[in-house]
Amino acid sequence: MNDNKLTHLDAAGAAHMVDITDKTVTRREAIAVARVIMNGDVMAQLQQAAAKKGDVLATARIAGIMAAKRTSDLIPLCHPLALNKVTVDFELDSVNNEVRILTRCVVEGKTGVEMEALTAASVAALTIYDMCKAVDPAMTITDIGLHEKLGGKRGHWQRESEGSR
Amino acid sequence: MNDNKLTHLDAAGAAHMVDITDKTVTRREAIAVARVIMNGDVMAQLQQAAAKKGDVLATARIAGIMAAKRTSDLIPLCHPLALNKVTVDFELDSVNNEVRILTRCVVEGKTGVEMEALTAASVAALTIYDMCKAVDPAMTITDIGLHEKLGGKRGHWQRESEGSR
Amino acid sequence: MNDNKLTHLDAAGAAHMVDITDKTVTRREAIAVARVIMNGDVMAQLQQAAAKKGDVLATARIAGIMAAKRTSDLIPLCHPLALNKVTVDFELDSVNNEVRILTRCVVEGKTGVEMEALTAASVAALTIYDMCKAVDPAMTITDIGLHEKLGGKRGHWQRESEGSR
Amino acid sequence: MNDNKLTHLDAAGAAHMVDITDKTVTRREAIAVARVIMNGDVMAQLQQAAAKKGDVLATARIAGIMAAKRTSDLIPLCHPLALNKVTVDFELDSVNNEVRILTRCVVEGKTGVEMEALTAASVAALTIYDMCKAVDPAMTITDIGLHEKLGGKRGHWQRESEGSR
Amino acid sequence: MNDNKLTHLDAAGAAHMVDITDKTVTRREAIAVARVIMNGDVMAQLQQAAAKKGDVLATARIAGIMAAKRTSDLIPLCHPLALNKVTVDFELDSVNNEVRILTRCVVEGKTGVEMEALTAASVAALTIYDMCKAVDPAMTITDIGLHEKLGGKRGHWQRESEGSR
Amino acid sequence: MNDNKLTHLDAAGAAHMVDITDKTVTRREAIAVARVIMNGDVMAQLQQAAAKKGDVLATARIAGIMAAKRTSDLIPLCHPLALNKVTVDFELDSVNNEVRILTRCVVEGKTGVEMEALTAASVAALTIYDMCKAVDPAMTITDIGLHEKLGGKRGHWQRESEGSR
Repeated sequence: MNDNKLTHLDAAGAAHMVDITDKTVTRREAIAVARVIMNGDVMAQLQQAAAKKGDVLATARIAGIMAAKRTSDLIPLCHPLALNKVTVDFELDSVNNEVRILTRCVVEGKTGVEMEALTAASVAALTIYDMCKAVDPAMTITDIGLHEKLGGKRGHWQRESEGSR
Repeated sequence: MNDNKLTHLDAAGAAHMVDITDKTVTRREAIAVARVIMNGDVMAQLQQAAAKKGDVLATARIAGIMAAKRTSDLIPLCHPLALNKVTVDFELDSVNNEVRILTRCVVEGKTGVEMEALTAASVAALTIYDMCKAVDPAMTITDIGLHEKLGGKRGHWQRESEGSR
Repeated sequence: MNDNKLTHLDAAGAAHMVDITDKTVTRREAIAVARVIMNGDVMAQLQQAAAKKGDVLATARIAGIMAAKRTSDLIPLCHPLALNKVTVDFELDSVNNEVRILTRCVVEGKTGVEMEALTAASVAALTIYDMCKAVDPAMTITDIGLHEKLGGKRGHWQRESEGSR
Repeated sequence: MNDNKLTHLDAAGAAHMVDITDKTVTRREAIAVARVIMNGDVMAQLQQAAAKKGDVLATARIAGIMAAKRTSDLIPLCHPLALNKVTVDFELDSVNNEVRILTRCVVEGKTGVEMEALTAASVAALTIYDMCKAVDPAMTITDIGLHEKLGGKRGHWQRESEGSR
Repeated sequence: MNDNKLTHLDAAGAAHMVDITDKTVTRREAIAVARVIMNGDVMAQLQQAAAKKGDVLATARIAGIMAAKRTSDLIPLCHPLALNKVTVDFELDSVNNEVRILTRCVVEGKTGVEMEALTAASVAALTIYDMCKAVDPAMTITDIGLHEKLGGKRGHWQRESEGSR
Repeated sequence: MNDNKLTHLDAAGAAHMVDITDKTVTRREAIAVARVIMNGDVMAQLQQAAAKKGDVLATARIAGIMAAKRTSDLIPLCHPLALNKVTVDFELDSVNNEVRILTRCVVEGKTGVEMEALTAASVAALTIYDMCKAVDPAMTITDIGLHEKLGGKRGHWQRESEGSR
């Protein structure tokens, strides 16, 4: 037997925003990650900009934070959430020519903040792409995923192994 | 010598929206791709939903199209563009348990539509994640990238080989 | 004596967003309806699209749900609300050549969700118009109204008789 | 034979934003109408507010104008348009206890402004409902429709007879 | 010793949305002010418009109220807030040829509403500028500031003396 | 005789978005300014943040640029414009304890970009206030005004004397 587990669809297959009235308000946290893969020329530009206080990562960080706040406006069936905290961090890996993005969102609410953390990571990555695309249009954004999740009925969840991604 | 090639930063490293007044209005097109990787259980649910006319992909498609129109509102240094066309297509690959997303944007304007196509692909992928995350929170969104680009000063550009992504 | 009962105006007639601090948080629900009246040709297209899994109603449903979340951004004096649930349902009536729309919104809050349910119904109707207007520009949207309302100080309210509309 | 005339669906029934690249830029105008039907008590309040310079209709007018500018953000498959003009006018009919709304939008572009005029009329009507709903929750919004349309390939179109609505 | 007191920056100087989880929910209120300085010709037009029920101040009031609701969407590190109340008031000073704006926002939440009140005042002032700029482009908006603040850990705060501004 | 010069009001005093169809498309530029006045403690923090590459001004710059793009969504009667360029610059004046903001917007269009430049300046100033308000809630934003304007029917306009502000 193969039941419908897609909770965002009703019995007839129609999309709906599910009722969360009976869920419990708890502190919920989500951590998401993404990577932007580039050629060595872009990485050199990013390092040079960082050294000179250039605004590339600051711009991507603000874009990510603002996007987290707009998640329910972008993802059709997401519930609106009043976020308590958003952070967006970057790590430049000049060996592998990639930028690693880690976002963290916290809310006290009836539903999780995975989508907010993932949206922040995605838009931060897109902003890096935008600012560097003239140097390397073949950059790719990859491995956008949930890293960890706390709170809610299911409690703590963590991605099993980074190697599996 | 290593010149600054990051056109979105001025000489002092400050971010700005670059002046496109002197660029030429041409028809510009961009095609972007993304993949959503899931476990077999999610794929089975997606196929079942598709068979029953469930709204998963229709919802993701609308989310992607609407996000394309909001690109300049999300990506800080993007110019506002009046899009002529947006399409978002999906391919379910039940062998590899992935959904492939292909977006296409067209504009007549002074600047390209890469960011619109990439934003549409990203938000469509996030929407699939949102609708299926209860089944598999470890789904990942990967290989978001520009596939092809037409129009503008540089003319035709195409990603060299899909294998290299 | 004819007192001012328009609570959204102050004593001087100026619009304001009224203070709801002293109201009670309760579960509140609103059900709204609308009808889209069309000619037989549009109805035939809608039925054909439904039979072939075409995206007309799925698109209108998503538009309605997203609009519900944006109500306080559209209606100047509406309070922002974190909706718990939104559904948008359609009924094709091929005898009368009309689509009936029924929306349902739920919140736990200090103010009702009538405007959210009505906005969802209106935007879902406008989206159907948009997708079918090439076939029949004379389609009309009619009888947008509140059908039922639960919760809040006044408790249950229901439209007296559909015939009276 | 019954061909698909729903241009917003592709051959597979998927929604898309159609390509308007090959259409001609012309001046396009659309006039839309709506009616808000209320009881005598609301009408008395509206007249009293108008006499005392109360902000009901001014608020609804601004809401309608701002909504017109946000049409492509609300209606999924609408193209973004840079509107040249928007007006929203009201007529209080105290005999029939209704407010008549007439909106007018102008653009120079490749696609019409029907949806902008209809969205302005709908949101202006919803705003009147919002401001008066405490007096009469049974108010209805009705006969939202296109009244006239100029410009574009099809040229002038006018609703045949007001009586038929 | 000169510690970092800019709470919106982390130890490395990166911007973030600070965690308010541990703060207390209280009723919070903020009152902000602004002045628009104009020449006598604009003031005469404003008075004439007011006498004839013209929509200048009504439009600015609605713009201010709507902007208050959008504050967290405009100011990157502001937390989203569900406002309980917003008012925007104007005083025409025809001796000094200025319009004084006073805004008041109330929330029950974990963080203050200063930014909402200040954003409402700024956008109301910009709207007056917009509507009158054809008569006097040299108008200035000045003395946007917090006037008073209630609630929260620090309790009551009031600007010391209006003369010092 | 004192004619109505407020072009945003019609003969009856109702607000409307004026028709710009007959205006000429030209390159238009606007430069706006604003000042944020603070105490010495805030200025010291800003200088320290700048020395350590802290994100205060980068954040305010991005907020200003994004706000410029959203001007027609905030100011009710502004026409939507596809901006060609936006810059936001800051000057720290540690003698007078103030930050001076200068914004510059360019468009090719039928209407000017004053409101976009003024909105960018206002929101950049509000963002500085937000990030520093914990140190000095009495900071004020002042002298928001148009500095210079090029293009359009009236051609070049420049504020007469900075001293008069």
